[in-house]
Amino acid sequence: MRDQVPYVGRLGIEIMGWERGKVTLRLPPSEEILRPGGTICGPAMFGLADIAFYGVIMSLIGRVELAVTTDLNMHFLRRPKPVALIGEARCLKMGAKLAIGDMLIWSEGEGPDRAVAHAVGTYALPPDRSAQVLGAES
Amino acid sequence: MRDQVPYVGRLGIEIMGWERGKVTLRLPPSEEILRPGGTICGPAMFGLADIAFYGVIMSLIGRVELAVTTDLNMHFLRRPKPVALIGEARCLKMGAKLAIGDMLIWSEGEGPDRAVAHAVGTYALPPDRSAQVLGAES
Amino acid sequence: MRDQVPYVGRLGIEIMGWERGKVTLRLPPSEEILRPGGTICGPAMFGLADIAFYGVIMSLIGRVELAVTTDLNMHFLRRPKPVALIGEARCLKMGAKLAIGDMLIWSEGEGPDRAVAHAVGTYALPPDRSAQVLGAES
Amino acid sequence: MRDQVPYVGRLGIEIMGWERGKVTLRLPPSEEILRPGGTICGPAMFGLADIAFYGVIMSLIGRVELAVTTDLNMHFLRRPKPVALIGEARCLKMGAKLAIGDMLIWSEGEGPDRAVAHAVGTYALPPDRSAQVLGAES
Repeated sequence: MRDQVPYVGRLGIEIMGWERGKVTLRLPPSEEILRPGGTICGPAMFGLADIAFYGVIMSLIGRVELAVTTDLNMHFLRRPKPVALIGEARCLKMGAKLAIGDMLIWSEGEGPDRAVAHAVGTYALPPDRSAQVLGAES
Repeated sequence: MRDQVPYVGRLGIEIMGWERGKVTLRLPPSEEILRPGGTICGPAMFGLADIAFYGVIMSLIGRVELAVTTDLNMHFLRRPKPVALIGEARCLKMGAKLAIGDMLIWSEGEGPDRAVAHAVGTYALPPDRSAQVLGAES
Repeated sequence: MRDQVPYVGRLGIEIMGWERGKVTLRLPPSEEILRPGGTICGPAMFGLADIAFYGVIMSLIGRVELAVTTDLNMHFLRRPKPVALIGEARCLKMGAKLAIGDMLIWSEGEGPDRAVAHAVGTYALPPDRSAQVLGAES
Repeated sequence: MRDQVPYVGRLGIEIMGWERGKVTLRLPPSEEILRPGGTICGPAMFGLADIAFYGVIMSLIGRVELAVTTDLNMHFLRRPKPVALIGEARCLKMGAKLAIGDMLIWSEGEGPDRAVAHAVGTYALPPDRSAQVLGAES
């Protein structure tokens, strides 16, 4: 995903943790994504969430070229510090047609109990993926 | 906003319409925001929505330095074409503490009845803005 | 729907307008759904939205027994008066798998520019409905 | 809340757990809230979420008469069984003006890893509550 869309790639998002159904990512700080007052802009956090949810799907069913986001809801909880953001996403439901996940995002050095944002999102999966996958719920 | 956050500024968003409580913006196409398959990436659409809602608030009460997004919910309806996106945002509620708006986004050359995305979002307004403003609902 | 779920049926929701892709409903006031202070409780408004979105789908493709809500997002804008609520829902996207709509709800005697709530929601459609339907987008 | 709004009271929601910032509720099954096919209707789940978020605020700052829901976003993940629902809500942010929480809802006998719904919501707090409260973040 980083390689394919320059606007997302330039965020430089890094993978910190990767297990089935749970992905932890890091968004490094940069001049580019800072807002006045030293906080991190919303579109960068949205990019982090979008990649994290896609990562969670990949952790469960492998690369899915045609998965598309159908909704993404973000709540901004606290002003992020001008440091890296850590985002941890989990799968809430992996179905045959839809995958739904949620995540918390916090400033590096703090933890999920001091989250700066919460996101929940849905991905639509392509119809032919079922051939590749075992165990998806209907 | 374009001037203050490079990551948002590089989207090159243009103002097409501006009236009290309603703002129309244009997100020009670029290699940078295209996804494989020739569609426009989610974070760029999120940036368009975030700026549009902030613009709607400005159209009603002027520049508000400390307004912060508290939630933003996007539904992605159709695959955008690799052309400019037009987004039209309106104010649903301008209160003393919160402003809420919604918007439709469509591919240039089409219209809102073929929207590619719908967004709804909330901004928290700073407490001292009430001094500057007349007519806000409580 | 009113007949099938007593908890929804007791709301006594009435159809005021019905055209392809657009449905207007009325939620009559009652002691049952009033909150202290004389305003209407959230679950009743949620019921109104849920039925309205289902109605919009029916207006486009007829009765769909197995359609299920996958997400519903409501913003509460103003305190409703203790009078009837009017809700107008429209279809934003009717696809083969998902239908998405939004709606405004206002107090009877006022209008959509003084909406008390905004909702957006997604329904998942059963796979075999495509046989019955012409013209759905993929 | 159960006492004050009959439409909510008739759900018969019970408190199962109560600690600072975390509340667990139980929605008993009844003919009234069942949908055809033996599943539980959306408005009842919305009522459960709305009460749970209000309970979380009360667990932190006591009774707040004038708190109002400003947004509530639900994702429906799986078809609930015709048994009781358990909902566990936590506080994500308790600020001076806004409180935000999320929750998972599952069928009794199962667990949060098989959640039937996820909700996130925001409450606006009355301005004068700050007098009563210590430790809220700004």
